Formats: sequence, C-alpha cells, structure tokens
Amino acid sequence: MHNNLSIIGAGNLANSLVPSLLKAGLQIDFIYSKNGQSAHQLAKKYRIKATSDIKKIKSDIIIIATTDSSIKTVSESLQLSKDQIVLHTAGSISINVLTQSHKNAGVLYPLQTFTRNKEVDLKNVPFCIEASNKNTYSQVKELAELLSNNITELTSEQRLALHTAAVFTNNFTNLMYTIGNDILTSHNIDFNLLRPLISETAKKAISNQPEKIQTGPALRDDIKTIQAHKDMLKGEQLEMYELLTKWIKNRHRDMDKA
Amino acid sequence: MHNNLSIIGAGNLANSLVPSLLKAGLQIDFIYSKNGQSAHQLAKKYRIKATSDIKKIKSDIIIIATTDSSIKTVSESLQLSKDQIVLHTAGSISINVLTQSHKNAGVLYPLQTFTRNKEVDLKNVPFCIEASNKNTYSQVKELAELLSNNITELTSEQRLALHTAAVFTNNFTNLMYTIGNDILTSHNIDFNLLRPLISETAKKAISNQPEKIQTGPALRDDIKTIQAHKDMLKGEQLEMYELLTKWIKNRHRDMDKA
Repeated sequence: MHNNLSIIGAGNLANSLVPSLLKAGLQIDFIYSKNGQSAHQLAKKYRIKATSDIKKIKSDIIIIATTDSSIKTVSESLQLSKDQIVLHTAGSISINVLTQSHKNAGVLYPLQTFTRNKEVDLKNVPFCIEASNKNTYSQVKELAELLSNNITELTSEQRLALHTAAVFTNNFTNLMYTIGNDILTSHNIDFNLLRPLISETAKKAISNQPEKIQTGPALRDDIKTIQAHKDMLKGEQLEMYELLTKWIKNRHRDMDKA
Repeated sequence: MHNNLSIIGAGNLANSLVPSLLKAGLQIDFIYSKNGQSAHQLAKKYRIKATSDIKKIKSDIIIIATTDSSIKTVSESLQLSKDQIVLHTAGSISINVLTQSHKNAGVLYPLQTFTRNKEVDLKNVPFCIEASNKNTYSQVKELAELLSNNITELTSEQRLALHTAAVFTNNFTNLMYTIGNDILTSHNIDFNLLRPLISETAKKAISNQPEKIQTGPALRDDIKTIQAHKDMLKGEQLEMYELLTKWIKNRHRDMDKA
C-alpha cells in the first residue's frame, strides 16, 4: 500500500488511529481540526503536520474522524479529484452522506469504546468496512487489514444495527454497573465487591450465547426475592428494576413457548 | 480449624463449595439432598457420604446451600446441640431466618455467578459474612478465610443491598448482552463482533467508577443518532432503548447540577 493519508478530526478515535497508522508504515500528510489546536497537539506528539485549512489536504485517502454530526458538512467542504478516497468512521451514519458529494467513498468503523489518553491496541478491534465501488473497497480493505486482524464487510443498514446493539452492550451495561454502584454507595458498601462479578459476567457472555447463561430471580420467577429487592429500592431504581425484571420474564416465557 | 462440616443442598453452589472445602483440608461428613440423588452424585465424585436423612447430620458446622425459598424450612427441621453452628449462603435472606430456631447462626455469602459443571476458583470470590454471636463469627471468619482471600463483614440489610446491586450488574447486564445479540441476529450479523466491546466495557468499569466512563448518544444528547437507533427498533426493544436513554440523560443531568 503506497497511499498517503490525512485525518480530519483530532478526538479520541484520531488519537488511537494515528499511532496505529504510523506503526503500519503509512504516511500521514496532515491532521486537520477546525481550530487547529487539538490537531496541533496530536500532530506534535508524532512529529507530523497539523492544519486548520481544509484546502491543503491532497492525500490519496482522507479519513473523517470527527463527531457524527459534522461528517456531512466536512464531506461537502472537501473538493476531491477523481482518484481521491474519502472515508468516515461512524457506526450510525450511512455511506450515502459521502456518496452525495464523492465518487470514491467508504466506511472504516472500529467497533470499540475509545477513551482519551488510553491507547487501544486496534489489532483486536473489529473493523466494519463498506465502499461505494470495487476499487475503493479493495483499498479500504487493505487499509483496514494493516490496522486490525478482525475485518467484516457490512452494509450501512447492518452497521446501524450493530451500533444500536453496541449501545445496549456498552452504554446500557455501564448504566447497570452505575446503578449497582449507586446502591452500594447508599449502603456504605465498597464497589470493589462487585468487580469480580462484573468480570465473570462478561467472561461468560464472551464464551456463551448470553440468553443461555441468564440467571437470577426474574428468570426463576422467585417472587419473594424480587419483593425483597423492590422493598429496598425507590424512584427510578425501583422503576428500572420492575421493568427489567418484567422484560427478562417475558423473554424467557417466550423462549419456553418457542 | 478442627471442625467437620455437612452441606445441605447439592446444586451449583454446593458443587463449587465441596472441592474448595476439601482442598482447604476440611472434613465433610455428609452432603444432604431431599431425594438423595443429587447429593449422591456430588458425594460420589469426591468419595464422601451422601444422605437424604437430615437427622444423620451431627457436624460442628452445617452449611445450608439450598434455594433461598427452602432455607427457612430446612433450618426449622434441624435439631442442633448448643455448640453446633448453622450457616446459610444466600444474598437476600436475613440471618433472622436462622436465629429464630438456633443460637449459633451465620451467613457465608459468596458473591459470584455459579454455573453447573464450571468450577469457579473461590479464592478471588468476595465472601460476605455475618454471625449471631462473637464466637460463631470467629468460626465463620476462619472458615471463609480458608476458602477466599476476599472477606467482608456485612449486616443482613447490607447484604440484601449488595444482592440487589448484583442483579443489576449480572442479570440485567446479561439482558443487555442478550438484546444486543437479538438485534445482530435479526440483521444477519455475527455476535462475535460484539465480544471485544463486552470485554473492554467490563475492564473499564473494573478500573474506574462506572459513572465516569459513561459514553454514547444518550450522554451526549445526540438526538440524530438516538432517532436513527429508534427508527430501527420496535416493540420491547424500542421501549427499553427509550427508557434507558432517558435514565442516562436524567442521571447525568442531575450530576451536572450536583
């Protein structure tokens, strides 16, 4: 792969992509950010160039790694030659947002949760790819394979479904951990007690189908335990407990019928 | 510790306790189950004795490892001498259920999810203990320390709170994984794609306060992405998405105010 790249955006994802791209031997021409400051910080760290002038960007491949809501505007502001490729990196945005303005468009979506200042090894991160034509597809695939060992082609519709599933798996799961922590805090109990359970629950789901390892009072329809739990909750925690208990019951009753 | 033990019940927890107790050098007199069959299977595996006659049980310490709903009945059926100790192992049951009939009572609650045929190393499992008097407490503590490196004294009320928090952290989290899997299945996407995210989400919660690592469209109040997700969900999944999104928003709005 002899392409050079530029990256638009200097947030959490760009901070993970830049070192991985450099390690893979790729040349990064520019990192762009609107005000130039965040791009400058990131670029300085790796001794590459930063810019806030989008017209300077002439690379073979341009990766948009901004917030989802900026992708359309950024894409429309790019004036590309017929060989240049533009990619976005978002889970919930259709490739159509790029193809409205550009012939060679693609998606390079890494399915992981990124935190600033915590470098993630992209090698094991699933990358979901898509492209507007065959030649672009093969270039996107080649690029993705330099970054990760886990590449899947998905349509924009499938990617949106995956992104929604990721919200349940990450955002909503983290809310469950947070409520667990809230309950402990209000009873003067150390959150460390829950950590081995968090770990084992994730491990079990990784090596099994999660529906098959469901346990707990809702599954057993253990009315006494459910009542004891409800008696010590109130407000939103109680509402949440009741609904999620109902949902587990419904789901497993339906499974029994099936 | 020169005590001998008997175990009432032969389910998932008993299957984890027996090998750990034997490894710790303790003597198990009997494993009891009502019909004798499950106790016999477990006892045979470790060359110990099984019984379905509760009157045979004369050990220094009797551990009730049955379902929560049987603890009271089992406890009432035990006729103990003044030195014998009876313990239960449940998260949501008060010690009072035992002290109604017995002087020396205690709780030995391992906070973990147990699956049949999967031996769990109890050394890292948090054990929460409680006892009806000082002497019993020191014996329960000694026993717990032989099994695990992670012992905490909790009142029955605290233990119930912990058990409720564990329902959020394990049962409800596993429901989130299940919904994620459902969404992927209906779009012909491999669940393996979500596994690195499940793992990283748990790892992050283990080394941080979960509320501080919350991410996602609900936290950012990203209305466009939320709408795109909602457009592809229906029925209970949509209801669940809307409520959990509202709860994340409320929680983090309250935090901003605080």
